[in-house]
Amino acid sequence: MSNPKAAMLVIGDEILSGRTRDANMFHLAGELTKHGIDLSEVRIVSDDETAIEQAVKALSAANDHVFTSGGIGPTHDDITADCIARAFGKHIDVRPDARALLEAHYEATGLELNEARLRMARIPDDAILIENPVSTAPGFTLENVHVMAGVPSVFRAMVASVLPTLTGGAPLLSQTLRVNRGEGDIASTLSTLAEDFADLSIGCYPFQKDGVFGANVVVRGTDGARIDAAVTRLARELEL
Amino acid sequence: MSNPKAAMLVIGDEILSGRTRDANMFHLAGELTKHGIDLSEVRIVSDDETAIEQAVKALSAANDHVFTSGGIGPTHDDITADCIARAFGKHIDVRPDARALLEAHYEATGLELNEARLRMARIPDDAILIENPVSTAPGFTLENVHVMAGVPSVFRAMVASVLPTLTGGAPLLSQTLRVNRGEGDIASTLSTLAEDFADLSIGCYPFQKDGVFGANVVVRGTDGARIDAAVTRLARELEL
Repeated sequence: MSNPKAAMLVIGDEILSGRTRDANMFHLAGELTKHGIDLSEVRIVSDDETAIEQAVKALSAANDHVFTSGGIGPTHDDITADCIARAFGKHIDVRPDARALLEAHYEATGLELNEARLRMARIPDDAILIENPVSTAPGFTLENVHVMAGVPSVFRAMVASVLPTLTGGAPLLSQTLRVNRGEGDIASTLSTLAEDFADLSIGCYPFQKDGVFGANVVVRGTDGARIDAAVTRLARELEL
Repeated sequence: MSNPKAAMLVIGDEILSGRTRDANMFHLAGELTKHGIDLSEVRIVSDDETAIEQAVKALSAANDHVFTSGGIGPTHDDITADCIARAFGKHIDVRPDARALLEAHYEATGLELNEARLRMARIPDDAILIENPVSTAPGFTLENVHVMAGVPSVFRAMVASVLPTLTGGAPLLSQTLRVNRGEGDIASTLSTLAEDFADLSIGCYPFQKDGVFGANVVVRGTDGARIDAAVTRLARELEL
């Protein structure tokens, strides 16, 4: 049985403009791999209603899970929740359960739960709230889409809330063999290896350090013994 | 006149598995912004023929330019050039001009130009070569798609080769105002500002540092005087 398949949708002008370097994708990719869910695609779109809605529909149809990051705060450019609701034809408004969470939080901190902050309680009908232990305002799961904050500390906390509730597959294992030769020298050996171990994924990542060319060969799969066998054979063939 | 619109396609299992953190996207985003080209979307797909071909077609149709990163080396998993050729219905084979570059390079370095390395001279008909001052093997431009290497130093060199040949628009300017208040406190002020300065993009990026909540408000646009006016008004309204 193959692993569940996931996609990520990052919503954020600040990443497309080069102002901010994305951290959430890197974090989610690692967590999904450990959990046995295959990340098949990532899309980054701007804070644009049509772009968000179309991307969510396409990714939701083609994957078991979609994880979104960004656009669920209190300001005018936080339009993700409304776009997700529209993508699934759901009504959205301030929801009592989310409002109660925010009321308790702002009462405790002495800050005002004003109209802007109340936007963070806008949750589509039928969505399940995702706990936010960092700053309370919840994310939500609607159909197979998990909607989470863009602030890295909050994103990571929400991923930790959601992942244990999802059925994973076999974690992806990997072994890396560092080879101090140019990629072109080992390419034909790798090609034959990839044919003989078609159940594994064999990647070759060249590097150049202090004028020396080399490559990291990464063998990935879910069966540790097969990975061992492939790496052992490769090391023998390259006389390492 | 609005700026040209671009998309980026990153090809790489190593990023989707969480093994590598992408650096090329962050670099390209910054360079495009300086050059007056708007990055509208990024997609990251795995080393999969169908995924690459479909993404290239979709992004090429919706944008003035597409920049790809990864999958043009000598190994079996380097399938980008063939996928791009197929997406545009072009014939692809080892091309004499690219082969001549590699022959000269390998003769100078004393390495063998073997069958695997010759794969890097596979260039679609009608494509224009992109210079690679780092390691010679060229990228190429076919229609509106610029195909570049995934190794960061080579990617950056190829971006530097391509960008000056493209017509840019007005560079995107920005000013940032750091506000030591919670995002929810300033949201309504920002919302009115965004309505009054509809020609600018006003983003709010919350942070939390040493227990203090704050936000960076970033005002972006192509008209420096308008940005000045917006930031000045915001500072006055927030009594900064």
